[in-house]
Amino acid sequence: MPQTPPDELANRRARFAEIAAPLRLNGFALFHSHNVGYLSGFSFVPTERPIAYVEAADGECALVVPELEAEHAAKLGGVKRVVSYDEFPGDMHPMELVRQVIHDLGLDGPGRRLGVDHDGYPPVWGYWGPALTELIGSELVPLSRSLDRTMMIKSEHEIELLRMSSDWAVRAHELLQAYTAVGLTETEVSQRASSDATVELAEVVPGYSGGGLGSGARAGYRGQIGRHGALPHSIGESIRFEAGDTLVTGATAPMWGYVSELERTMFLGPPSDEQRRLFDHMVRLQDIGFDAIRAGEPASAVDDAVRAYFESENLWGHWRHHVGHGIGRRYHEAPFLDRGDHTILEPGMVLTVEPGLYDPDWGGFRHSDTVVVTDDGLDMITAAYPSDLESLVIPLG
Amino acid sequence: MPQTPPDELANRRARFAEIAAPLRLNGFALFHSHNVGYLSGFSFVPTERPIAYVEAADGECALVVPELEAEHAAKLGGVKRVVSYDEFPGDMHPMELVRQVIHDLGLDGPGRRLGVDHDGYPPVWGYWGPALTELIGSELVPLSRSLDRTMMIKSEHEIELLRMSSDWAVRAHELLQAYTAVGLTETEVSQRASSDATVELAEVVPGYSGGGLGSGARAGYRGQIGRHGALPHSIGESIRFEAGDTLVTGATAPMWGYVSELERTMFLGPPSDEQRRLFDHMVRLQDIGFDAIRAGEPASAVDDAVRAYFESENLWGHWRHHVGHGIGRRYHEAPFLDRGDHTILEPGMVLTVEPGLYDPDWGGFRHSDTVVVTDDGLDMITAAYPSDLESLVIPLG
Repeated sequence: MPQTPPDELANRRARFAEIAAPLRLNGFALFHSHNVGYLSGFSFVPTERPIAYVEAADGECALVVPELEAEHAAKLGGVKRVVSYDEFPGDMHPMELVRQVIHDLGLDGPGRRLGVDHDGYPPVWGYWGPALTELIGSELVPLSRSLDRTMMIKSEHEIELLRMSSDWAVRAHELLQAYTAVGLTETEVSQRASSDATVELAEVVPGYSGGGLGSGARAGYRGQIGRHGALPHSIGESIRFEAGDTLVTGATAPMWGYVSELERTMFLGPPSDEQRRLFDHMVRLQDIGFDAIRAGEPASAVDDAVRAYFESENLWGHWRHHVGHGIGRRYHEAPFLDRGDHTILEPGMVLTVEPGLYDPDWGGFRHSDTVVVTDDGLDMITAAYPSDLESLVIPLG
Repeated sequence: MPQTPPDELANRRARFAEIAAPLRLNGFALFHSHNVGYLSGFSFVPTERPIAYVEAADGECALVVPELEAEHAAKLGGVKRVVSYDEFPGDMHPMELVRQVIHDLGLDGPGRRLGVDHDGYPPVWGYWGPALTELIGSELVPLSRSLDRTMMIKSEHEIELLRMSSDWAVRAHELLQAYTAVGLTETEVSQRASSDATVELAEVVPGYSGGGLGSGARAGYRGQIGRHGALPHSIGESIRFEAGDTLVTGATAPMWGYVSELERTMFLGPPSDEQRRLFDHMVRLQDIGFDAIRAGEPASAVDDAVRAYFESENLWGHWRHHVGHGIGRRYHEAPFLDRGDHTILEPGMVLTVEPGLYDPDWGGFRHSDTVVVTDDGLDMITAAYPSDLESLVIPLG
């Protein structure tokens, strides 16, 4: 599925228009790659060369891109009018072209309300340039929360891409587990697993593209090995596996701009009683998380339920982070399964569920699964990977 | 070299203070990861959990991080005061803690001038929150250009990291060239080259870290194969190599937060006359670029010189982009070798030189080298990789 189907784009635009209706906008201008990709169908790796999507309330729209993206953007066909500038910063700064497009669509001037996800192009890499407020006379209305609310609910098309992503995360993770052994380094193992899974993916899925989020299936440890794993997101050092290590993994595969998340806690050799105890608590916590996910209830209720178990079992010393987050075009996005996020859960939301326990001696204990909220519970799209202790013990030698 | 040396940090802060002096700031608050990492020594992968570095004019400073980064940030030692919040969005939004820190350092209130690189934390992934202007009464002064000017000139320490990055880019590229053959796919070849080079890197460089820019040495084609290469930054599809293909490569290796860039044009089998002609023009263009880089002259002069050759040789149909860009903590940063960037070149600037020619039938022709501007010319830190045609023809079968 190389392109966003026209129906899909039309539905997204209609839903966004509905959510943004109370803002009474004359139109909007978007600059962030995930927002532009969502509503225009044009996915790209953001650089210092600005890209903008502008749409008027009557549906007229335009995409502003650098010359070297113009052919690709036009081919994708989601936006009929593609205008381009030659370079950044160029003889004429690219924001001047954005200003002209906003003007041409009748969105510039006092009394005009223009929704924006940022006041001009954000400072990606070495970008610099004027804010939109310096260029036009319209009233700018912040749109990020309305966009987040639109993007929270995934369509069938998006869920299909997230399922594909999960399937390939599972495949990369299988190889990771198979290759992991005492005496090897995490770098050797994760490189080999990711490389092999990616080669397989490119063979099996014709025309595969990650869609601006990187390319290929990946699985690794990011340093979360043995006691190093006490830091939930260690920056990778190449650690050598030892018997008795607790391991925390991570796997994903970008699919045309969508990512899932799969993480498992594994053991190198038979776990000790303490490893088993922390693992069991972690599984219990994740089950509590799954059970608390109910359409109609707030996201915060899931975190509250998990926190109640930390409290009742005296586990606060092992707590480091909330239960999970939305996922889709971004690795972490709204809603957050956090006591401060009171968004009401709805069918079609896609979330990770990943409460964790951390211990300075034993390391990290965390499974992460990607789930779709349904009418009567949830659909775990990473369920193909086992999560029971026996399946996750790597035999020694 | 796992940490930024204290001298290095002190020098960066002093130089930035000097450049920002005309702004008469009472202090500043930084939110972008490359800026925070540069002045605080704390490198990290930006997520929706805000991180901020705040410094007062008297040198007092503080780092605001999420709890799960607190231990790591404190260990790096570049900032004595590390304060943390438990989660995002959390019971109390993390920006409230940023506001408190700004207040504690005496930087909040009318008449106080606070430099910022963004009005609050930028919308990374699913972040949302108040702008700083909604929280404090100080006058905000944009700082991005002053930061860019400071970061343009690299120290010996930074240049050493960029040399390491170049060395490993060269190694990954050697493997890429060695593995490339008719009948294989770009995915197989680039995965294998990147994986092997990364395993070697992790063995040879103890405690290796990419420093928030990803991990490992990488070399690949990003779809720039045969006529597909007519798009300068194709999004990777897995193309199978055929005899006669023109190939454009890319290689890099993040080193504690610094990246270099190495790209070569190669041929699968003996090039045709037209391939040879375009290759020769490209080499000429790159030489013109090298010659035009002179301390004391503007960046734009380099683009002008290259454009003059496009004009005199009637090559405009093959033009797609400017000559190059600064590089360091970001893949592309100021100054840009672009006719619109009149920054005066100075010793210590690190630039890519990569004019390219593109042809719908033959594909792309581009070498990219990373160079350091010196008192009397330049030092090409990617020079270990040959750039002559004979060295870049991959023999058939």
